[in-house]
Amino acid sequence: MNYIVKDENAIYYECSYSSDNALFLKLGSEAFFITDSRYEIEAKESVNGATVIIDRDLYGQANKLIKSSNIKKLKYDPKEWTIWAFEKLKEDALKIKFKAVPDFSHKKRIVKSSEELLLLKKAVTLGAKAFDEFAEIIKKHGFDQDERMLTFMAKAMLSQKGKYELSFEPIVAVNANAAKPHALPTDTILSKKDLLLVDAGLKYKRYCSDRTRTISARKDFEFGYEQRFKKKKIQKAYDLVLKAHDNAIAKARSGMKAKEIDALTRDIIEKGGMGKYYVHSTGHGVGLDIHEMPYISSKSDTIVEDGMVYTIEPGIYVPNEFGIRIEDMVAMQSGRAVVL
Amino acid sequence: MNYIVKDENAIYYECSYSSDNALFLKLGSEAFFITDSRYEIEAKESVNGATVIIDRDLYGQANKLIKSSNIKKLKYDPKEWTIWAFEKLKEDALKIKFKAVPDFSHKKRIVKSSEELLLLKKAVTLGAKAFDEFAEIIKKHGFDQDERMLTFMAKAMLSQKGKYELSFEPIVAVNANAAKPHALPTDTILSKKDLLLVDAGLKYKRYCSDRTRTISARKDFEFGYEQRFKKKKIQKAYDLVLKAHDNAIAKARSGMKAKEIDALTRDIIEKGGMGKYYVHSTGHGVGLDIHEMPYISSKSDTIVEDGMVYTIEPGIYVPNEFGIRIEDMVAMQSGRAVVL
Repeated sequence: MNYIVKDENAIYYECSYSSDNALFLKLGSEAFFITDSRYEIEAKESVNGATVIIDRDLYGQANKLIKSSNIKKLKYDPKEWTIWAFEKLKEDALKIKFKAVPDFSHKKRIVKSSEELLLLKKAVTLGAKAFDEFAEIIKKHGFDQDERMLTFMAKAMLSQKGKYELSFEPIVAVNANAAKPHALPTDTILSKKDLLLVDAGLKYKRYCSDRTRTISARKDFEFGYEQRFKKKKIQKAYDLVLKAHDNAIAKARSGMKAKEIDALTRDIIEKGGMGKYYVHSTGHGVGLDIHEMPYISSKSDTIVEDGMVYTIEPGIYVPNEFGIRIEDMVAMQSGRAVVL
Repeated sequence: MNYIVKDENAIYYECSYSSDNALFLKLGSEAFFITDSRYEIEAKESVNGATVIIDRDLYGQANKLIKSSNIKKLKYDPKEWTIWAFEKLKEDALKIKFKAVPDFSHKKRIVKSSEELLLLKKAVTLGAKAFDEFAEIIKKHGFDQDERMLTFMAKAMLSQKGKYELSFEPIVAVNANAAKPHALPTDTILSKKDLLLVDAGLKYKRYCSDRTRTISARKDFEFGYEQRFKKKKIQKAYDLVLKAHDNAIAKARSGMKAKEIDALTRDIIEKGGMGKYYVHSTGHGVGLDIHEMPYISSKSDTIVEDGMVYTIEPGIYVPNEFGIRIEDMVAMQSGRAVVL
């Protein structure tokens, strides 16, 4: 099979190295990693199973390699390529057939190897530790601080003050702000007994963690599952989300369709009368990218198999009142969902 | 003129608002901003001079609007569009002619308005203040810390602990690490009298600042131009970079070609015998994006005009020894370069 890869993580998956200016080419039994001279030393040390080629003109170089290979057909992902870059690649007329395969790399990466599972487990463990440290710092210095400062503190804990990269910009939202699915930090202050939603993760050797906890910010709170909210409506919603979360983890099985797993959270929230406030899917795959396959949505017929890793993250969002989400990453092992 | 815009900053420039999932369409005298329901409230409050349309299917909606408009030709930037997204846009057959205009929005934005100049000036002022605060924190707590921790401290100062977004990931590099143009933070420790290069900026109301200083980390150092290094070779290179920087600021004139301004730094470093260590262009435009037009390179025939804003950032990089760069942002005003 012949293919060309442009996305940084997709390239990393092919040859254990990548840079922000690179191409990976698989032409029959040969493979090439092309980058510019800034990355020469690192590439030659780290690239696995591909010939490293240094050229400022990535597209011209790829064009030449394709021409001299005598291949007839080349797969590529149309989501990875801008029209401009693809034209550059084809500039010096290529007589081959390009075959567009959307999500080409994500499809290859949907089942994780045992090495990948260990890296993901390590990322999750470090992420969980950061949540615990964040709880301690909130209890000492976080009350009466605004969401922006709390977000800053969360990033300090997650990154271990610069040691790790984050999986994404963390969400740290108080009360009604937690009802906005794309909550950006505001100047809303955290007070005792407020609801606090934290959605955050970090990368360990490029593999992502992802976790959400919603807590009642009592003076001795922890980022655990047991929470007591002062408002009954919030407590009812919280208990429903937790039940949905636990149900999916208990009943997900390899061989199920993704939409059947989605139903394991959705049915419970719908039966509890709050279905209209559950406005997103149950979860998404996690790996080198924070959003990967499988997508655990009500429309997906993807068969979930052993070795897949994804989030279970039901939520209830009542506009202008509160938002609740509880999220863990699970790996399918021996037919069941194991929380990482 | 009819055009479609997809890039977030390019859309913001058109209608004073944007989201991470939006399209902007200009069809004759009409303009449309399309986004999904997550952004409905903010969009309706903030979009200027365009009709807000809420639709999950951005591309399908744009397709319909184009069809019902009776236009014949539509401009777009092939660097903004993936092949996949462009196919989505055209899915329901459109009988119009698409005209690819690379850098369509950047070309419009090359001359800044007086409002934009004020926002850029404010961003630069806040950025400079953050450098001063970073110097104070290094003097108190930064010696014997590694680059990762120093980078973390720099981000805390620049963001004012979460209040401002950064223009880019700051570079904080010690001694030989400063010679790598893409320096990522390492565990190298900062000791007294080391060379320290800091390249950093923040965003004020979406407009970017960008500044680099290279300093000798004495106990009373400041991020100023006057620096005394213990090694003669470093001092010689530093003085050359500063002379090149000052020369370009003094002699740049509106009406010059960008390559003539590039020569104002390059000639001095070449005459000083270190031309081969000056491996990049003199500078780049700055605005909503951190890299915009005009590009001040030895190959650019762009005429530099009043109202353009760009960096002057000559550098000398001796591999495995040291790297030096001094960077300021200038605005062309009344024919001359004024440091922001």
